[in-house]
Amino acid sequence: MSSVFGKLFTVSTWGESHGPAVGVVVDGCPPGLPLAEADIQVELDRRRPGQSDIVTPRAEEDRVEILSGVFEGRTTGAPISLLVRNADARPGAYDEMREKFRPSHADYTYQEKYGVRDHRGGGRSSARETIGRVAAGAIARKVLALAAQIEIRAFVTQVHDIVAPEAALVNFPSLAEVEANAVRCPHPATAAAMIERIKQVRSVGDSVGGVIRCRVHGLPAGLGEPAFDRLEADLGKAMLSLPATKGFEIGSGFAGTRLKGSEHNDVFVPAEPAVGSAKAGRVRTATNRSGGVQGGISNGEEIVFNTAFKPTATILQPQQTVDIHGTATELAARGRHDPCVLPRAVPIVEAMTALVLLDHWLRQQALRAIKF
Amino acid sequence: MSSVFGKLFTVSTWGESHGPAVGVVVDGCPPGLPLAEADIQVELDRRRPGQSDIVTPRAEEDRVEILSGVFEGRTTGAPISLLVRNADARPGAYDEMREKFRPSHADYTYQEKYGVRDHRGGGRSSARETIGRVAAGAIARKVLALAAQIEIRAFVTQVHDIVAPEAALVNFPSLAEVEANAVRCPHPATAAAMIERIKQVRSVGDSVGGVIRCRVHGLPAGLGEPAFDRLEADLGKAMLSLPATKGFEIGSGFAGTRLKGSEHNDVFVPAEPAVGSAKAGRVRTATNRSGGVQGGISNGEEIVFNTAFKPTATILQPQQTVDIHGTATELAARGRHDPCVLPRAVPIVEAMTALVLLDHWLRQQALRAIKF
Amino acid sequence: MSSVFGKLFTVSTWGESHGPAVGVVVDGCPPGLPLAEADIQVELDRRRPGQSDIVTPRAEEDRVEILSGVFEGRTTGAPISLLVRNADARPGAYDEMREKFRPSHADYTYQEKYGVRDHRGGGRSSARETIGRVAAGAIARKVLALAAQIEIRAFVTQVHDIVAPEAALVNFPSLAEVEANAVRCPHPATAAAMIERIKQVRSVGDSVGGVIRCRVHGLPAGLGEPAFDRLEADLGKAMLSLPATKGFEIGSGFAGTRLKGSEHNDVFVPAEPAVGSAKAGRVRTATNRSGGVQGGISNGEEIVFNTAFKPTATILQPQQTVDIHGTATELAARGRHDPCVLPRAVPIVEAMTALVLLDHWLRQQALRAIKF
Amino acid sequence: MSSVFGKLFTVSTWGESHGPAVGVVVDGCPPGLPLAEADIQVELDRRRPGQSDIVTPRAEEDRVEILSGVFEGRTTGAPISLLVRNADARPGAYDEMREKFRPSHADYTYQEKYGVRDHRGGGRSSARETIGRVAAGAIARKVLALAAQIEIRAFVTQVHDIVAPEAALVNFPSLAEVEANAVRCPHPATAAAMIERIKQVRSVGDSVGGVIRCRVHGLPAGLGEPAFDRLEADLGKAMLSLPATKGFEIGSGFAGTRLKGSEHNDVFVPAEPAVGSAKAGRVRTATNRSGGVQGGISNGEEIVFNTAFKPTATILQPQQTVDIHGTATELAARGRHDPCVLPRAVPIVEAMTALVLLDHWLRQQALRAIKF
Repeated sequence: MSSVFGKLFTVSTWGESHGPAVGVVVDGCPPGLPLAEADIQVELDRRRPGQSDIVTPRAEEDRVEILSGVFEGRTTGAPISLLVRNADARPGAYDEMREKFRPSHADYTYQEKYGVRDHRGGGRSSARETIGRVAAGAIARKVLALAAQIEIRAFVTQVHDIVAPEAALVNFPSLAEVEANAVRCPHPATAAAMIERIKQVRSVGDSVGGVIRCRVHGLPAGLGEPAFDRLEADLGKAMLSLPATKGFEIGSGFAGTRLKGSEHNDVFVPAEPAVGSAKAGRVRTATNRSGGVQGGISNGEEIVFNTAFKPTATILQPQQTVDIHGTATELAARGRHDPCVLPRAVPIVEAMTALVLLDHWLRQQALRAIKF
Repeated sequence: MSSVFGKLFTVSTWGESHGPAVGVVVDGCPPGLPLAEADIQVELDRRRPGQSDIVTPRAEEDRVEILSGVFEGRTTGAPISLLVRNADARPGAYDEMREKFRPSHADYTYQEKYGVRDHRGGGRSSARETIGRVAAGAIARKVLALAAQIEIRAFVTQVHDIVAPEAALVNFPSLAEVEANAVRCPHPATAAAMIERIKQVRSVGDSVGGVIRCRVHGLPAGLGEPAFDRLEADLGKAMLSLPATKGFEIGSGFAGTRLKGSEHNDVFVPAEPAVGSAKAGRVRTATNRSGGVQGGISNGEEIVFNTAFKPTATILQPQQTVDIHGTATELAARGRHDPCVLPRAVPIVEAMTALVLLDHWLRQQALRAIKF
Repeated sequence: MSSVFGKLFTVSTWGESHGPAVGVVVDGCPPGLPLAEADIQVELDRRRPGQSDIVTPRAEEDRVEILSGVFEGRTTGAPISLLVRNADARPGAYDEMREKFRPSHADYTYQEKYGVRDHRGGGRSSARETIGRVAAGAIARKVLALAAQIEIRAFVTQVHDIVAPEAALVNFPSLAEVEANAVRCPHPATAAAMIERIKQVRSVGDSVGGVIRCRVHGLPAGLGEPAFDRLEADLGKAMLSLPATKGFEIGSGFAGTRLKGSEHNDVFVPAEPAVGSAKAGRVRTATNRSGGVQGGISNGEEIVFNTAFKPTATILQPQQTVDIHGTATELAARGRHDPCVLPRAVPIVEAMTALVLLDHWLRQQALRAIKF
Repeated sequence: MSSVFGKLFTVSTWGESHGPAVGVVVDGCPPGLPLAEADIQVELDRRRPGQSDIVTPRAEEDRVEILSGVFEGRTTGAPISLLVRNADARPGAYDEMREKFRPSHADYTYQEKYGVRDHRGGGRSSARETIGRVAAGAIARKVLALAAQIEIRAFVTQVHDIVAPEAALVNFPSLAEVEANAVRCPHPATAAAMIERIKQVRSVGDSVGGVIRCRVHGLPAGLGEPAFDRLEADLGKAMLSLPATKGFEIGSGFAGTRLKGSEHNDVFVPAEPAVGSAKAGRVRTATNRSGGVQGGISNGEEIVFNTAFKPTATILQPQQTVDIHGTATELAARGRHDPCVLPRAVPIVEAMTALVLLDHWLRQQALRAIKF
């Protein structure tokens, strides 16, 4: 297993869905950062079960405890250990899964890989693992905001076949706009339709997926480490490491493949220093089909990318499957779950983005520390 | 910069477009592998400029030289150093780029990141860097083939708005089918249309992009290292580390977000040992919307993923831009280039896939080496 | 900071001397290992304060809690999170150190590096950090013992100028022999003198150092990864990462520099299969000045190395120093401490040895997994 | 195998003693560094065979070629590939070693680990591998010198039982003093005796070892990354990764274990800004038994450490050994070799020191880049 992420800002998550606790160790946090549990809790609350009527009702407060790395309200440079106790574990609800593989879950592959499996709520493959990511990400985004006024905003643009109109997504949405509804789509009319759809599929024991967009404002030019650790490569890896993701695209993405070069290229224009992002340096682009990244390196424009989430694998309809003895059987799913993971995935996408950006920000500082 | 890739099978590429040479060092290759330059040359020839009338005419033989790590025809476990001399460097052709930033190229971001830039043909950001990847990938795929009969096949499914019909892509294409035409699309009629389109845009100094699919046959269940080094996360990173890529999707991908869970789930069925992939273990899936990966781990079905390539940024039409002094100017691109990168990107996609799979294969061997 | 160690068996320690807890996350443990808290507690008890009358009287039970990665008594392959609450924290005892730098401690360097410092008992630089190492090492040594009957034994050979005679150290000491006395020297007469010396220096507020030897029995030939991750290089790094260490030598070490090649070389002799270590393969050495490692790789003979520990920096005598304002001052040390760290360092040396050996063992399994 | 070293300044060496070439790829070099082949050649010349009458007569010019990463005389941030062709390979001289294991060489362990072995001159285990280290180190030391006036000086203090008097080693020796004689001991009288001894043992086909000291002047306080990547831990690993090393000690080292804490502690004194190292910050130590490192972090004083080298394993006397079939036999060594490796190891020790220090220097820049 590999639960360690990041080169200079390194996070190490741990914990199972129905074990005693989940958590994360953050190594490499710059010293001197003002940090309290409230800074982290605010993000965990956005991820928390039971926060609205379209997410899982599992009753978890997800209270975070800082166990190390902070002294008199500031980080010391030492590893920061964060702990969240599991409160509403009901392992008995998963007895059926001990022997049966849930379709499109990780049950079978964990069994094959490890030869042993904590079947309770998915064990390590549960999305509760992302608590550690969100907690670590809360630290990273605070560093980015204080050090460089970098702002990260994710939001839902598609649920099932309901898609927010691009015209409604032109401006960088405020946090309040995103948090204004349970589905975290900043276009209210679309959000209402999405919520309706989620409730409807839930009522028949089914589920839906969709797309989350993430935009980053204020990122300076120069982040990203070609050849292999291109910024979009690391963002893509971060997103595709999340449960239920099936796709990632940046800038023009898959749609851009249908343009010609003359239509797709972002021509450069001189920056007007008094306007726009001062960080962008001397030069800006007239359009942003690059999504803020050229040659694997940020160009000072907004970072824009989409992540595809499949419909939740857990559904409350009987499904054909196989048990651990290889015998065909049927599974009637139980256990609390989200009919659509996207609303709660929004802070997770932001957290992973923050982890990637801070890591690259620190690497760039090292690279350019010396002036010859 | 970060030109090192892989944890156990580690490759380190180097070289610029118009420097004396490009190459790669491969560390961690299992000892005892029969290896000759011909094993590597065959893949470099598939990537080579000038191989057809729809790719760049730069005259490079791309002859590989093995400098270390092989003794009496077999790998020794020592690092394998591979060298390819640049033959047809014409740095003078790039004088204009010394001061002007080419739109949607890496010129501006390299200047911002490094403060210095080899402007000749993109320098390090040139796709010639991928020679090292293809050479290393040739070794990885030979290991995978000999050790586990794993077969990797990439091919072009879309160029501009020309898309191969899914009905024509049901079977795992043979290498001969892919290599049968210059665009490397295994559906001859579509290939012909693609070639026509590429020639047409080239004739007006324009360019096009598209989509490459990659399929992997014979991969056993159990590869992938959650939480962060999920197999699809590492495949996605590998693809998004390639020049010109803007998107990645696995299995149902973005289209799958429009299905309900009841439509999307891959139900399990008992494996019939005499049929299909013996590696799949006791269990198979009736469909493969998962793309061969569940919970970040291979499930024994075929790996299937798509990568989006933008239209080539180099076009032979005048473009508005800015120079290194921040002044608006115009650029009339020169230099030899591909009007569509996809045909030559096919072996590169395969190479990166091989690097990821072998690294994970080795990691899985370590994990399961001990039986308690 | 870098509190992550190991490539395939990765440990991530955290925690301060006077914070709420200390702990470790272990990633990469092979699945299926029977593991209970008692397996870990037994090693923590050997490291624990207050275990004898020659160590610090700080009252800590150091009870370990397994928070993840174990299901129904066996490891699952998921990260194992281990937590130990600090019980007897007395931060008030360290008020003087808030502004004064203790000589030969980490106070000044932490202040310079991080610009902020948890002064209470050394904070992160406290030897309490090694609890995580010992806990993780307990898992590693259980894997090594079960998988390959590898046995690791450290013991004290020197305290101040009292040195155990080599003639008394010929045999591989049993655990019982090492644990038979408070100083963990397997030669009873020497141990008695060492204990006497420790009590004597403590009575005058002073401290002493010494040497710990570590021997490893049953290690197969083939572990170690030249050029850089030679086995002795990683063992040396592991030992030199421990607080208070100033030197490391393997096999003949510094003394071997005074021999000629003809005196120093270990000639090879055919192994007698029925006798000695079957793991040693076809060949053995008549002597072991190599210390079990040749060319950076284990040769099947016993691994033997020494680690030098300086006298404890904390002494109860007034010392000249400087405060954080740069002003000369005097420090009268307080706080509980060990007059000699060696007795408690024995299980720590063993733990770090286990971490290195298991990591290399797993790497070797990956390398040799494929037979061409 | 693991031939990659360093986290931010990463070097990847390759090549065998009697293959076509040896070399290194350096990734992560700060851009803008003026760099020419002469900067590297000067260090290779210090390492080169045949430079004096007490080293191996193998005729190698060791001419370095820069293949990438430098543009118009400055580094670009791209990987720097350095190549040195092997000129005087005489593989036939090693025919006897194809089947026989040389005592205290890596022949047997390579055979066991890899199952295959390039027997010619030790293949990968040859000290020719260190050419890549010296070449990469030349770049690192130039960065350190230009960026921070850090000076690294290694020299021989002991050959066999001939030891330079400490009184003669008080001052930081100049490069000229070290290079003034063939053995690289800055005390001329001792040097003469050492040279005499080396010639004498060579005349009887024997060999000797010894100790190299390394001192670093001008290093600022704050380098080193506890808990695991302490500065002395990484220096120790670097030295112990060199062929023929058996021990490492920093500051008081093994001798310091015989002092009491009251004798060993380095008391702090206020820095007199006008005198001594301005980099040392506000505080200095009255003595330097710490060797410039406290708590794993540099304290601004001189770094001082010793490395033990065993007598050369190759001797020209018949030795008992075993062949690859496990049969006892006798070996009459041939091949050109050094009767004492220390003179040529001096620049290698400096190179490895430079690699460690620059890597830590860059890491520290990243850590402290943000001021809250």
